[in-house]
Parts: sequence; structure tokens; C-alpha cells
Amino acid sequence: MELLDKLNWRYAAKAMNGKKVSEDKIERILEAARLAPTSSGLQPFEIFVIKNQAIKEEIKPVAWNQSVITDCSHLLVFAAWDTYTEDRINHMFDLTNEIRGFKNEGWENYRQMLLGSYPQKDAEENFNHAAKQAYIAFSQAIIAAAYEGVDTTPLEGFDANAVDKILGLREKGLRSAVLLPIGYRQEDKDWLVNLVKVRKPMAELVTVIE
Amino acid sequence: MELLDKLNWRYAAKAMNGKKVSEDKIERILEAARLAPTSSGLQPFEIFVIKNQAIKEEIKPVAWNQSVITDCSHLLVFAAWDTYTEDRINHMFDLTNEIRGFKNEGWENYRQMLLGSYPQKDAEENFNHAAKQAYIAFSQAIIAAAYEGVDTTPLEGFDANAVDKILGLREKGLRSAVLLPIGYRQEDKDWLVNLVKVRKPMAELVTVIE
Repeated sequence: MELLDKLNWRYAAKAMNGKKVSEDKIERILEAARLAPTSSGLQPFEIFVIKNQAIKEEIKPVAWNQSVITDCSHLLVFAAWDTYTEDRINHMFDLTNEIRGFKNEGWENYRQMLLGSYPQKDAEENFNHAAKQAYIAFSQAIIAAAYEGVDTTPLEGFDANAVDKILGLREKGLRSAVLLPIGYRQEDKDWLVNLVKVRKPMAELVTVIE
Repeated sequence: MELLDKLNWRYAAKAMNGKKVSEDKIERILEAARLAPTSSGLQPFEIFVIKNQAIKEEIKPVAWNQSVITDCSHLLVFAAWDTYTEDRINHMFDLTNEIRGFKNEGWENYRQMLLGSYPQKDAEENFNHAAKQAYIAFSQAIIAAAYEGVDTTPLEGFDANAVDKILGLREKGLRSAVLLPIGYRQEDKDWLVNLVKVRKPMAELVTVIE
């Protein structure tokens, strides 16, 4: 399967060369993220695409000074909802009704069920749930980049509070969840590029219950 | 891009017809999950592949009686580590050294850093982190299934404690994070199959910072 070739090709680039990725490739990568399935279809996150070099420079020191932050072409910040609110839930259900052109009783009952549960939950629990949905999209973006022949660095090593401040995320009801520098590898500075990909053997990861 | 076609083709099947998915397809779907990138390469989860109908019947009532639980071909349970332990961290670093055939000082320092942080953290925080990694693999499995022309139902609507009990996960230091029934859609019983896919418009999801 071609997909497996792409997954074997990709790796977490540890050095990038600053070369720009074309906007049409970025658009398709973002489209893959947009199409990601999410719990109840709520898409509880936003994606910030940072092309501004000064802002990348600001983020670098709060991300362990990783060079890919500034040497990437586009830095994606996946920011999850800080909690689920009635407005946010209603917005997605209204959008669904608008796009599909009708109201469905089962779907409206489901809306009421979500309105009666999420907004009453602890914000931290809701954020964690929303962040998981962002990871589904993040994963799809990584694969889409591989299809475009573009490198990425899945990146959790950053101070989320500091990134939130730099981008003003809290005021928007968002919290940074995970970063994805997109660009092109610089092989001669990348310690990882020539190392064998390591994964657990299937038998250690998977248990079949016959 | 072919990937976008696959992402547009897929949807969360709400009814399946019980037809079996061939084992070679399942193997490639699991391989996609195995290849998923995870934080520090720890792969902090396991996947249970349930073919046993009696166990599916046991899970169904604790998963809102969703028919896909029993009408799917293979039910995947993504179970994340309940916490990060020294043993688990050491195991992955040892495996890496074994596969690559050498020890690297930087990598050993990184091992020590992880040993000095994760195991001291709150188990719930660690589980949430591990679960996010499982979602990356979950996302890759969904895409792989689409490439195989196989339907899936990304499924969070279940009682995790009950599923943990049925599969004996807690004793293994695991907690169920998310389910993925894999099978073939039954169109005449699926209310969702003919509805338009709804996603937020790009402008609502993405902010470009030039």
C-alpha cells in the first residue's frame, strides 16, 4: 500500500533548510486536517499557520530552542478549545443544519444531550478531550505532508503557556496543544535522518482476541 | 491528491453488515497504526483486535448499544498506558539501541531526562498524554482503512471503565482510550451514509499569520 511507503518515508525532521513550501501544498495539508473526523463532528480546535519569522523567533526559546521552529517554512500550531461551551456546540449543529438544509430530530436530540453534558464538565477535562481531537487532525496533516514530499516535525516539546501568550490564544478561548513545523529537511545537520526507524514489533503492540 | 479523495470517501459508518474484512487488509491497517509517530517514540499504547463475537456482545451494552460494535468485522480497542514508568521508558530506549546497534550519548541523556520527569508526574496526566499518542495511531488506522476501501466508526461513546474490566486492561497497566470498529457499511440501515460531510470552512478553522 502506497500509504505505508509514505509512513515509512516520513520521519521527525530534526533540521530544516529554510526552503519555502509552496502554498498549494500547504493548502492540501490543511485540507487533510480540516477533513479529520472529530468527536460529534465538533472540530474543537483551530490551526494557526505561522509564516512570520519574528513570531517563530519568539517561539523558538520556549520550544527548547529547536532549530526547526525557525528553519521550517510554515509552523502549524494546533490550538484546542479551552472548554466546550453551549455557543460552540450550537454553532456546529447550526452549521450542520445549514449545510444539510434540514433539521433532523435525532440530531437535535443529540445536540441537547451534548448541551446537557460538556458545558457542565470541568474545563481541564474538556480541554484534554478537545486536544485529542486536534491530534487526529495533526496526524492527518503529517500524512498529507508526506504525500506532498514535505517534511514535518511533530513537536510537543514546548511551553504551552508561553506559546498561548505569544499568540494570544487564551483570549480566544484556545490553548496550544501541539506544534507541527513544515518544511524541508537539511540532511547534513540532522542527526536522525539516517537512523533506522524504530517501532515495537507488531506482537508487542497488538493482541488479537479470536 | 489521492489522500484527500480517501478522506472525503470515508465517513463514520453507523451500520455495518457483518461481512469479514480480510486479514491482509487488517494487517496493513495495523501496520499504519504501528508506524505512527509518538512522543519520544515511546508508543505508549497497545491495540486489542477483537474478533470474538461474544466479547463484542459484552462490549455493545457499555457502548450505547451501537450496532457497529457487533456488526463490524474487527473491533479495535486502543488502550493507552495508565502511566509512564521507568521500565516502560527503558524498554523503548533499550529496543532503540538494540535495533540501531549502538548507544548514542545524546539519546542516553534524553532517556535520563524522561526518566527524571514522566514517572514523577500524576498518573492521570500521563494517561492523558499517552492517550493523545494513541489518537495519532488511531487516525492513521482510519486513513489506512479508507485506502483499503474498508469502513470504520471512530467511537468514543463507551464506558471506558466497563471496557477495561471486560478486557482486563487495568491489570495490564492499560486503560481503553478509543474504539475503532472496522467492517463494511450497511447502506440501507445507515442514517449517515447519504448525508453531506460537514466541516467548518477553512477560514473558520485556520488563521494565517503572515
